[in-house]
Amino acid sequence: MKVSSLLGERLKAVSEDIAIESQLFMLKGGYIKSVGNGIFTLLPPAQRISKKIQNIIREEMDAIDGQEVLFPVVMPASIWQESGRYTSIGSEMVRFKDRSNSDMVLGMTHEEASVHLVRNIAKSYTQYPFMIYQIQTKFRDEARPRGGLIRVREFTMKDAYSFHTSNDDLILYYNRCHKAYENIFRRAGAKNFISVKSDSGMMGGNISHEFMLLTPVGEDTLAICSNEECGYTANMECAESVVYNEKGESKELVKVNTPNMKTIDEVCHFLKVDAKSMCKAVVYQRNSDDSLIVIFIRGDLEVNETKLRNTVKSEIHKAQEITDASICAGFIGPIGLKTTATVIYDSSLKNATNFVCGANEKDYHYMGFDIDRDLGNVEYVDVAKILDGGICPKCGRHTIKLSNGIEIGNIFQLGTKYSKSMGLTYVDENNTPQYPIMGCYGIGIGRLMASICEESHDNYGPIWPISIAPWEIEICNLRSDDEQVSSVANKLYEDLSKVADVLYDDRNIRPGSMFADADLFGIPVRVVVSPKNLAQNLIEISTRDKSIKTTVSVENAYQAIIDLVEELKKPYKRV
Amino acid sequence: MKVSSLLGERLKAVSEDIAIESQLFMLKGGYIKSVGNGIFTLLPPAQRISKKIQNIIREEMDAIDGQEVLFPVVMPASIWQESGRYTSIGSEMVRFKDRSNSDMVLGMTHEEASVHLVRNIAKSYTQYPFMIYQIQTKFRDEARPRGGLIRVREFTMKDAYSFHTSNDDLILYYNRCHKAYENIFRRAGAKNFISVKSDSGMMGGNISHEFMLLTPVGEDTLAICSNEECGYTANMECAESVVYNEKGESKELVKVNTPNMKTIDEVCHFLKVDAKSMCKAVVYQRNSDDSLIVIFIRGDLEVNETKLRNTVKSEIHKAQEITDASICAGFIGPIGLKTTATVIYDSSLKNATNFVCGANEKDYHYMGFDIDRDLGNVEYVDVAKILDGGICPKCGRHTIKLSNGIEIGNIFQLGTKYSKSMGLTYVDENNTPQYPIMGCYGIGIGRLMASICEESHDNYGPIWPISIAPWEIEICNLRSDDEQVSSVANKLYEDLSKVADVLYDDRNIRPGSMFADADLFGIPVRVVVSPKNLAQNLIEISTRDKSIKTTVSVENAYQAIIDLVEELKKPYKRV
Repeated sequence: MKVSSLLGERLKAVSEDIAIESQLFMLKGGYIKSVGNGIFTLLPPAQRISKKIQNIIREEMDAIDGQEVLFPVVMPASIWQESGRYTSIGSEMVRFKDRSNSDMVLGMTHEEASVHLVRNIAKSYTQYPFMIYQIQTKFRDEARPRGGLIRVREFTMKDAYSFHTSNDDLILYYNRCHKAYENIFRRAGAKNFISVKSDSGMMGGNISHEFMLLTPVGEDTLAICSNEECGYTANMECAESVVYNEKGESKELVKVNTPNMKTIDEVCHFLKVDAKSMCKAVVYQRNSDDSLIVIFIRGDLEVNETKLRNTVKSEIHKAQEITDASICAGFIGPIGLKTTATVIYDSSLKNATNFVCGANEKDYHYMGFDIDRDLGNVEYVDVAKILDGGICPKCGRHTIKLSNGIEIGNIFQLGTKYSKSMGLTYVDENNTPQYPIMGCYGIGIGRLMASICEESHDNYGPIWPISIAPWEIEICNLRSDDEQVSSVANKLYEDLSKVADVLYDDRNIRPGSMFADADLFGIPVRVVVSPKNLAQNLIEISTRDKSIKTTVSVENAYQAIIDLVEELKKPYKRV
Repeated sequence: MKVSSLLGERLKAVSEDIAIESQLFMLKGGYIKSVGNGIFTLLPPAQRISKKIQNIIREEMDAIDGQEVLFPVVMPASIWQESGRYTSIGSEMVRFKDRSNSDMVLGMTHEEASVHLVRNIAKSYTQYPFMIYQIQTKFRDEARPRGGLIRVREFTMKDAYSFHTSNDDLILYYNRCHKAYENIFRRAGAKNFISVKSDSGMMGGNISHEFMLLTPVGEDTLAICSNEECGYTANMECAESVVYNEKGESKELVKVNTPNMKTIDEVCHFLKVDAKSMCKAVVYQRNSDDSLIVIFIRGDLEVNETKLRNTVKSEIHKAQEITDASICAGFIGPIGLKTTATVIYDSSLKNATNFVCGANEKDYHYMGFDIDRDLGNVEYVDVAKILDGGICPKCGRHTIKLSNGIEIGNIFQLGTKYSKSMGLTYVDENNTPQYPIMGCYGIGIGRLMASICEESHDNYGPIWPISIAPWEIEICNLRSDDEQVSSVANKLYEDLSKVADVLYDDRNIRPGSMFADADLFGIPVRVVVSPKNLAQNLIEISTRDKSIKTTVSVENAYQAIIDLVEELKKPYKRV
């Protein structure tokens, strides 16, 4: 491909104010163009990267016995009604009526479609296990698309579905797929990624993992144990919070006047106590009927909304104005609380002795609150956010670090949620009908591309790993108006194109502009043909990451370039 | 791939009554499964064929300097409002509102998206010409999906868009693309296909061609000149109708009583005249306001609705009940017709002498109608359907044959319809803004697959061309419970898999069932390992089309199979 013919332009700057570098470079470099909120056209460089990522994914999916299929983007609502998700999923799923007034949806995931496909086909235990996958367009009407390809509404996704006759078999396959995902991300050039235990959300099922690429711009927060021998990692959404209160000396319960002091800080400061000795009340409401949920939690901790949602099995939001007369906002406490609200005690209050808590009376708190003495038998639930520097729930040390990450893939043990609801059965050895146990496995292609760019760039543009780079080699002809320079550059282009993906900058522009564009293309191997070097019969070869910069004779250039390409490819090969 | 692990089942019969053989075989063979009306999931064999077709298309598109991009499936309505098609396209385009109440559409074609992409990028004449293409899912809410993958609502399509600075350059590129299409269809194994001039329909522009695969199940009718030196081909929708009336002896105009005779047949029989001497009236209405259109046409011809639509520049339908008092249904004639309806004279009435026509009076016709004498200056328009056995508009002989065809691709010269309406301009050599001239080029992948199956099958299943076959070789192990047979078959599978796509039927089933399934798989090279042949140290090799059936020694089998595969591939290679 010649740059003079390549569709797209490289920009010095973009008009929007963009905080995320992958987005900036992909806009400046002519990779993507926004068509609407969270909807992009991919230009040739991005589409080339996407196809290379897809090829890596196909190889690894085929290697774990995946069979590629293609499900529809537009589906009849009926199969989503069978699973129950037609109503349980909110406005992120697009619904519309077709010309004959039938309800249709745009596929945001394909568990339903996979069960629909399989249920008349895989009728005997002898046909199990198997895995099917597709690479297809998905549309999710995200409320807040952001960051270029990081969070979009329309995207290309690899989604896979496995079917098993026992949970043990699912776990075996789940682990194979976990390994395949590691291979995919490594081969695509991701460096700093981990898998973390995660919340299964709308997918259902119990055990799931997210693959997270660690980067400050990630919107997920991860709890990672810094004790390498331990290796605990989890999405903060589901990380267990472990805190201890030593059972201290019990003191008398005393009601104290705390005029207008509604916040923890105000009360702590006024009463000269630490937030760790406070019993704080946080109030939520169920989305469905606005009914109240009061959570008592230690004063230094925050409520983890995902864990709370799973506890109350309902969508929730923070209560805004509390009109319930039984609740005295700012002074809510466990003692003498008379309310119809759901009351939850976080595990952080175990052994609370000599704590401060609200007195359910305006401008009053209690000091000397002793949870065992004052409340008796309390059922504790873990709904607190894990703390940076907090205790690792696995090794028990104070080794938790919080990091940001982008989710680049996920794997779920779904169980029988979909096979049961949609009536997928097989007959076992005894001719008894059974529900298959399912797993599902996703990777967003565009997000992976953007995440790798986020991780692998300098101040001037992306540094694409050679395994997914839009081209492997870029030839810069610094004087396309010079016959000798062009004849050498043209010859190299012609020869190298036969064995590698080559981009040839044949434009008659200043070297500064050409190199600026080359930095935005981010191509791993750069070959510069210039009059100055040619005068000494030399050609310059360098890598985009600047780790190599050398000159070779014109005669040896071809082989040296090929050798360099082969060397760079080594870390990304299948093993 | 082993058949024992392959997802899908081969059926002896399907419950539905299916008239189209490609659909029957693709259902029986486990290629497709219906998810909704005109919506299918592709199982592994179909997805494999689809990917092979896509690869051929990519090679040929790249060879004519195409650059692959990816447009979104879901687009904001705004860009379709710019082109005017948001309102001009009917209910085949899906429209919906997203969560923020914005109007969105599902892409059924991507002219708008391509102009949107290009208009801030290709700003100078130096950047032209160029072509961009994508392979992407499309959804068209067809009123009557039919024939499996022949006419669906959701499909994978290659669509391409070229941009030019002159009409001459467009024509040059259009012809290159025409050639590339011939290559694609030939390489994909289509045999009996032609390109025909076609009506541009909703795409706009003037010149367009459809590539038609000739088959009785095709729903398009084509006019083909059987004079090979002529080569005229056209879709009947736009084929010019040529008929001649010899200027005969003029006779007196006589009003005759034709009681209750409203049809041509009745009148011809009663008055003992040939339909070729009748001036028939056909009445249509505009969809928009139901206003009437009266077409006078020779009695033996039919109105071509596409040509009529283009003539009146409006969507139309046949008039059902005529309530307009100025129109005397069944007796409408050109003489003395007083109406506000649009009146059209088809070219078939040129030189009409001594014709019969309605008298605009119940139960009366005229005999002796002489169009030049009785009407004077008439403007003729061609709105008639071309006749089988009729006159070729190119060579002038009575050589027209009508054939059915399936449209497997189309190419359009769009002109400036989209660049003008959407404000896409470039500056020319004189720094003057100009509108680029566009072409567009489509191929539906699934329909091509089904069409080739339609053309290439026997009574037992598809005969896939090796270039797109789901697998190149099928090994049938006739005794998987026999150690010796299995060891030979396993070894062949292992060795051949390294160099070819191999399906291995390793199931312990009866040979009859195995061969029936193999016929449904339609794989070009079949290798049968049986105890009987092995006893003589032989392996059977045959082709799916039954043109080759031979035995070779076990030692020579591998090479003989490879040689056969290479031989079969030859006709489909790039040239």
